[in-house]
Amino acid sequence: MSSHHIIRDKQEPALIIANGESCDPDLLGQLLEWSPLIVVLDSAIYRVLGLGIKVDVLLGDFDKDIDLDLIRKEQYPIEIVHTPDQENTDLEKAFDYLVEKGFPAVNVVWATGRRADHTFTNITSVVKFRDKLKIVIVDDYSKIYLLPRSFEKWFAESTPVSLIPVGVVSGIKTEGLKYNLHHEQLTLGYRTGSSNEAEKDGFVKISHEEGDLLMMECWD
Amino acid sequence: MSSHHIIRDKQEPALIIANGESCDPDLLGQLLEWSPLIVVLDSAIYRVLGLGIKVDVLLGDFDKDIDLDLIRKEQYPIEIVHTPDQENTDLEKAFDYLVEKGFPAVNVVWATGRRADHTFTNITSVVKFRDKLKIVIVDDYSKIYLLPRSFEKWFAESTPVSLIPVGVVSGIKTEGLKYNLHHEQLTLGYRTGSSNEAEKDGFVKISHEEGDLLMMECWD
Repeated sequence: MSSHHIIRDKQEPALIIANGESCDPDLLGQLLEWSPLIVVLDSAIYRVLGLGIKVDVLLGDFDKDIDLDLIRKEQYPIEIVHTPDQENTDLEKAFDYLVEKGFPAVNVVWATGRRADHTFTNITSVVKFRDKLKIVIVDDYSKIYLLPRSFEKWFAESTPVSLIPVGVVSGIKTEGLKYNLHHEQLTLGYRTGSSNEAEKDGFVKISHEEGDLLMMECWD
Repeated sequence: MSSHHIIRDKQEPALIIANGESCDPDLLGQLLEWSPLIVVLDSAIYRVLGLGIKVDVLLGDFDKDIDLDLIRKEQYPIEIVHTPDQENTDLEKAFDYLVEKGFPAVNVVWATGRRADHTFTNITSVVKFRDKLKIVIVDDYSKIYLLPRSFEKWFAESTPVSLIPVGVVSGIKTEGLKYNLHHEQLTLGYRTGSSNEAEKDGFVKISHEEGDLLMMECWD
């Protein structure tokens, strides 16, 4: 992002702060800097209040006690969105909220770590929003996003690249990876494309025909 | 486990220490106590050495520098298993090793957290070992295992129970949960059974006809 860009607008990704493990404060700071809208999920608000962050939207089913009056006072003005429906997770409801408000993209932090069921459900829930919202889940070790049918990005040599199928993904072709795929199929649990890497400085190309393929750029 | 049981034998689960986030030392201590065999994956050995644990097997591709002579000296006797094959992860190779040695069950720690690609691949890799090895992945917030076609276990009221399909799972029936399933289908990314709970003190019954269904018992 260019440094002269001082107007917050909807072209920059919104930011959702979920309720998993906290990330490095520097990472959070970078994401906050350009975000036009900060959405916090449910009781994560108490962890956020202590960080001195101005929150725009608090969203949740609030099934644990939350003192909304106190939060309204500390964060005025704040929009409070009560989402009691139990069919979808708070994260999915936040994605729906952003789609409705016309945001094209969102970064998500604190969505991983701690409970494995939440981590799993949060990461895989992005597939439902394929054509609606560009979602990137970020933590201290990983950057995760759904690949479009055809994808191209420049990577430095040996950058780790993991292709994780959410179920079965077929017709996968890659160029520029150390272990390329040639019209092959990946199946979660049986054959995944984890721990691949960019063969050299240059563009990596990945295409697939059917299914939902996650890109995980991860580092130690 | 009964307290008079002082002979380590293969009926108790082996323990694999992988290379993700460390767990609570108390949890590790409990798992170590009865384990007849401790397997450490690759460079995790350096984090284990500092904990004063006696390791039985060190397994890995050793693609990062590891001073095997030093480890042999500090941990004598230790079996060192070099697994250069790049098709499978070190964790999968450790499962294969235990199957070959005749172990019926294994607990796995340090397999989650940190890199999302490793977490995802580690957790879902258990499905390949359905009839070969009873695998439980444990961390500070979660206990994860593959459900057999028909399953029954006693839970206290309100215990969180998450059913996570690895791909598509069909013909799921449950009894004793707050939100029961009646011959239904779950699909990862689209409809999962996360954040369910035991309705009351008593047995929860879960059966399914096709696919791989993970149980995640998680807590905050």
